[in-house]
Amino acid sequence: MNAPHDRWVVGVDLGGTNLVVATMTTDGRRTAGLQTGLTRAEEGADAVVARIAAMISASIDETCRTEGVTRDAILGVGVGSPGPLDRAKGIVIVTPNLGWRDFPLRDRVAAAVQLPATLDNDANCATLGEWWIGAARGARHVVGITIGTGIGGGLVLDGKLFHGASDVAGEIGHTTVDVTGRRCKCGNYGCIEAYASAPAIAERAREALQHEEHSSIADLVGGDLSKITARTVYDAAKTGDAVALEIVREAAKFLGAGLANLLNIFNPDCVVIAGGVTAAGDTLFEPLRVEVRRRAFKPAVEACRIVAGTLPGTAGVAGAVAAFLQQRAE
Amino acid sequence: MNAPHDRWVVGVDLGGTNLVVATMTTDGRRTAGLQTGLTRAEEGADAVVARIAAMISASIDETCRTEGVTRDAILGVGVGSPGPLDRAKGIVIVTPNLGWRDFPLRDRVAAAVQLPATLDNDANCATLGEWWIGAARGARHVVGITIGTGIGGGLVLDGKLFHGASDVAGEIGHTTVDVTGRRCKCGNYGCIEAYASAPAIAERAREALQHEEHSSIADLVGGDLSKITARTVYDAAKTGDAVALEIVREAAKFLGAGLANLLNIFNPDCVVIAGGVTAAGDTLFEPLRVEVRRRAFKPAVEACRIVAGTLPGTAGVAGAVAAFLQQRAE
Repeated sequence: MNAPHDRWVVGVDLGGTNLVVATMTTDGRRTAGLQTGLTRAEEGADAVVARIAAMISASIDETCRTEGVTRDAILGVGVGSPGPLDRAKGIVIVTPNLGWRDFPLRDRVAAAVQLPATLDNDANCATLGEWWIGAARGARHVVGITIGTGIGGGLVLDGKLFHGASDVAGEIGHTTVDVTGRRCKCGNYGCIEAYASAPAIAERAREALQHEEHSSIADLVGGDLSKITARTVYDAAKTGDAVALEIVREAAKFLGAGLANLLNIFNPDCVVIAGGVTAAGDTLFEPLRVEVRRRAFKPAVEACRIVAGTLPGTAGVAGAVAAFLQQRAE
Repeated sequence: MNAPHDRWVVGVDLGGTNLVVATMTTDGRRTAGLQTGLTRAEEGADAVVARIAAMISASIDETCRTEGVTRDAILGVGVGSPGPLDRAKGIVIVTPNLGWRDFPLRDRVAAAVQLPATLDNDANCATLGEWWIGAARGARHVVGITIGTGIGGGLVLDGKLFHGASDVAGEIGHTTVDVTGRRCKCGNYGCIEAYASAPAIAERAREALQHEEHSSIADLVGGDLSKITARTVYDAAKTGDAVALEIVREAAKFLGAGLANLLNIFNPDCVVIAGGVTAAGDTLFEPLRVEVRRRAFKPAVEACRIVAGTLPGTAGVAGAVAAFLQQRAE
């Protein structure tokens, strides 16, 4: 049990589908009151804010009970949200997944729970969380990439989140590695998201199976190609399925070119890759490291470790807490 | 005439072909004792160091004479050199153009002129110079790109040079925008240097003229295609020559994709482009801005101005002085 004078911060990870809330000590060593739920964005912004507020209250109550702290030990709430957003104003500018525009999320949450709050980008938070207490701990300059439905990114430089001139920095998923390549959801061609996101991997498998007769990918979904997910492809690749291996290698090639760009531009000492893609394990990470080594400058390769995130599900919450502490120190 | 208590720093810009040295006040407002000469790398490292030392002494003497300062007003020497290099040790690790390996340039120069010295990358210095007193003045986050024989880059973040984990950061010329594209001198395929450097532009013109009968590019070199330079292509483009315009537009397309990547990753408030390429003027800059606008996120585009450098020939010297001041403050 912690002494009553320990200080705690609530972290909120708001996703298009899921909500995760937990309360952590300011040194990142203890986590309590973990709450998970569905976002249910279709019910509207007011309902989502009410749900976030209820989960924050539940997390604080549970933390007070299990950790023996009092409510005045709670400093505030860090919120991680899809963006783009305006950190200074605490406003979510646009989120296609939530259907919001210019929504003052930070102040709405702060008012609902009567605590100071900060807002930052979800992918930034995931990167900061891995740097604070996860796979990138101890690194000075970190590039974080979260690969799921989309590809998000974050930059920690000299131990602080780097936001750029208008809070857009870190949009790694939408860097071009093939100017005449596949069309991306963002409207451009050849973004790494168009090759390595979970839907892109599943799509490539469906395309491949129209020409290939033998692949365990089809067996894994009982012949119903519409059921193929990225996970299906990773599972088939692990059994040595040639079609699946080729798809994962292709994704690794494009992702590797994008990572090599980041190594040559930033020269980070750690790249941490998180999200569902880590389920692919060495099937992805080995060809990825080979491609990066082939493309980036040697001193940049030698300075950098490329690792999988170690905080699945909680990197965003931890990073939201750390972002709260960094914003308050600014 | 300045008061005797003003403080001055000598800047050295060491290139594969040219040497530039000048002495500047620590506020960047006055420059004196400008010296230019040839590097003559073929005479060996000792001879180059002796030449640098002689130019530094001449610059200081002239500054003392014309500005009425005494030698004790000279704080030290900032040196900009091709890299990669180890800033902390002051060592040039490799420079193909100079033929050096693990050469302790900083300490050799310091010993020769009996002044403290610092060492930084030449492209970093050019970027820092444009931020300090040139086209990027007043910006918070700057991406600098110098396009000549190669494409170098530098990053100024929060008003300070960003070096990365091992002083490699900023190698923008060797970011991939076309994984299966043109082979680059670095061994990779599809780097922006392979499309937009001066030799790449000249090479594309020579390729094009093997199929095209009508182009003023050929006229400008009296029919001797081996004499084509990037400048020839820019000059022809300005007269409306279709072949030249297409080559410049192609270069702008690839460079624009690379710049859009930087906008999405860094979200700078200024991109400054320097080097011989600025001679192309709007012929290059207009399609370049269009391509960036087409590919980068709107808030990143809106936050960023893309400008030509305003310190041709002296950005490197100014940046070497500013880098000296920043390193001494670390």
